[in-house]
Amino acid sequence: MISIVILGSGNVATHLTQAFLKADAINVAQVYSRTIENISYLKQKTSITDNLKDLKDADIYIISITDDAIAEFSKKLNLNKKLVVHTSGSISMDALKGNFDKGVLYPLQTFSKGKKIKFKSIPICVEATSKKNLNLLKKLAISISKKVVDFDSKQREKLHLSAVFVNNFVNHLYQVGNEICEQNNVPFEVLQPLIKETAKKITKLSPKDAQTGPAKRNDVKVMKKQLSQLTDSQKEIYKLLSASILKTQK
Amino acid sequence: MISIVILGSGNVATHLTQAFLKADAINVAQVYSRTIENISYLKQKTSITDNLKDLKDADIYIISITDDAIAEFSKKLNLNKKLVVHTSGSISMDALKGNFDKGVLYPLQTFSKGKKIKFKSIPICVEATSKKNLNLLKKLAISISKKVVDFDSKQREKLHLSAVFVNNFVNHLYQVGNEICEQNNVPFEVLQPLIKETAKKITKLSPKDAQTGPAKRNDVKVMKKQLSQLTDSQKEIYKLLSASILKTQK
Repeated sequence: MISIVILGSGNVATHLTQAFLKADAINVAQVYSRTIENISYLKQKTSITDNLKDLKDADIYIISITDDAIAEFSKKLNLNKKLVVHTSGSISMDALKGNFDKGVLYPLQTFSKGKKIKFKSIPICVEATSKKNLNLLKKLAISISKKVVDFDSKQREKLHLSAVFVNNFVNHLYQVGNEICEQNNVPFEVLQPLIKETAKKITKLSPKDAQTGPAKRNDVKVMKKQLSQLTDSQKEIYKLLSASILKTQK
Repeated sequence: MISIVILGSGNVATHLTQAFLKADAINVAQVYSRTIENISYLKQKTSITDNLKDLKDADIYIISITDDAIAEFSKKLNLNKKLVVHTSGSISMDALKGNFDKGVLYPLQTFSKGKKIKFKSIPICVEATSKKNLNLLKKLAISISKKVVDFDSKQREKLHLSAVFVNNFVNHLYQVGNEICEQNNVPFEVLQPLIKETAKKITKLSPKDAQTGPAKRNDVKVMKKQLSQLTDSQKEIYKLLSASILKTQK
C-alpha cells in the first residue's frame, strides 16, 4: 500500500484525487487546499486540511497547483527526506525547492471540470532522482494508468510543447469552426464525425500524408472565396495556416 | 433499385464507389475516368470507360472530381433531363452547366487513399432543384449513411468553410506537433490519447469551455519559455493562436 497526500484542488488535482481514491493499492491519506471549501466534498472519504503544518505522514506528496506557483509553494513544505512530486508538463523537476526527494508525475491529458476521464488510457510521465523513487512513482502511476513512461524534464517539456499545438491550439480551431457555424446558422454537430476521423486518421497515416484541402492542393480560387467569407481574425488564422500547409507539403 | 454512374477516380470518387458497390439497393452501372488505368481494378465489378460518349443509362450521374474542374466538365455531358450531381462542399449547385437536372451529394468527411472509412456515420448533405430529385438523392444517400442532411448551397459552403478549420488546419497542427516531437526525439504516439480526448471533449463541452493551457490562463512566463524553443514558422503559429485564444476567452 502506497500512501499519498494530494496538495491542490484544481482540475488536475481533482481528477487525480478521484482516480487514486478508486485505486486499490493506494491510500489517499489526505488532501490539502488553501481554500477548504474546494475539498469539503471529500471529507467523508479522506482527511482534508487547509493548514500545511497539519500534513499527515505519507510516502508521496503530490503538488498539483498552477505551474507558476509550484516553486514558491514547495519552499513552504517541511517534509524532510520525503518524496515530493509535481504534476506539471512544462515545469522542470528542479523547480521544487526543499530538503526532500524530488520527482514528477505528469498525466498527459486535458482535464476540465465536469468532463469525466478514463485514467487507464492516459500516459503518465514519471521522473525522479533515484531508481528507488522512480520505481515507487511507477508503482503509483500503474495503479491508475496502463501507460507509464519514463521521461526526463527536458523531454517532458518538449512533449508538453507539442501538446499545446495538438490540444490547446486544436481546440481553439474547433472554437473558430463553431463560431463560423453559429454566424451562419448551420449546426456544428454535423462536423463531429469529421473531427473524430481527423484525430483517428493520424494513428494510421502521418499528419503530413493525412493532409487534404484547398491549401494542400494550392487551390487559389477556393481559398480566395473562403477568405472573403471570414472575419478579420479568422482571416489571419486562415492565411497563416494555409501558407504553412503550402510550405510544408512541398 | 437506383442505378448510378460515377465520374471520377480521386479520393472521394474511390471511397464512394466502394461504398455504393456494397449497397444492396444501388446498381453501379458504370465508372468513368479520363485515365482508364485508375479504374481498371474495377472491371470485374462494373463497366468502366474513359469515353464520355459511351456513358451508360442511369438514374443519377455523380461527378466527383477536383472542385475547379466541375463546371467545365459538366458542359461536356450530354445527359438531357437526367439527374447530375457533384460531391463538392465548396462549389454551388449552379456551377453545374448543362441541359440536365442538378443536385449535390456532399459527404462531409476527410478521405485519403489507403485509409478505410465507415460510411455509415458520415453525414451526407444533399441538395436538388425539385422535391422528386431531392427524395431520390436522399434514398441514394441513405443506402450508405445513417445521417443524411438537407442543406442548400449557401449552408453547405459555410459548413465546408468550418471544416477547413476543424479538419485541414487541425491536421496541420498535428503535423507541427509531430515535427516538434521529431526535432526533440520524443515519441509523437504518446500524444494520441490526448488528441483523441481533445476531439471527444467537445461533444460534451463547447470548445470555449473545453479550452485549457497557458494562453487561456494568460501564463506569460510559460508562453515566453515555450516560444524560445520553437522554429520561426512554429513561433508565428504559436503567437497568432495564443493571441486569438486570449482574445476570445475573455
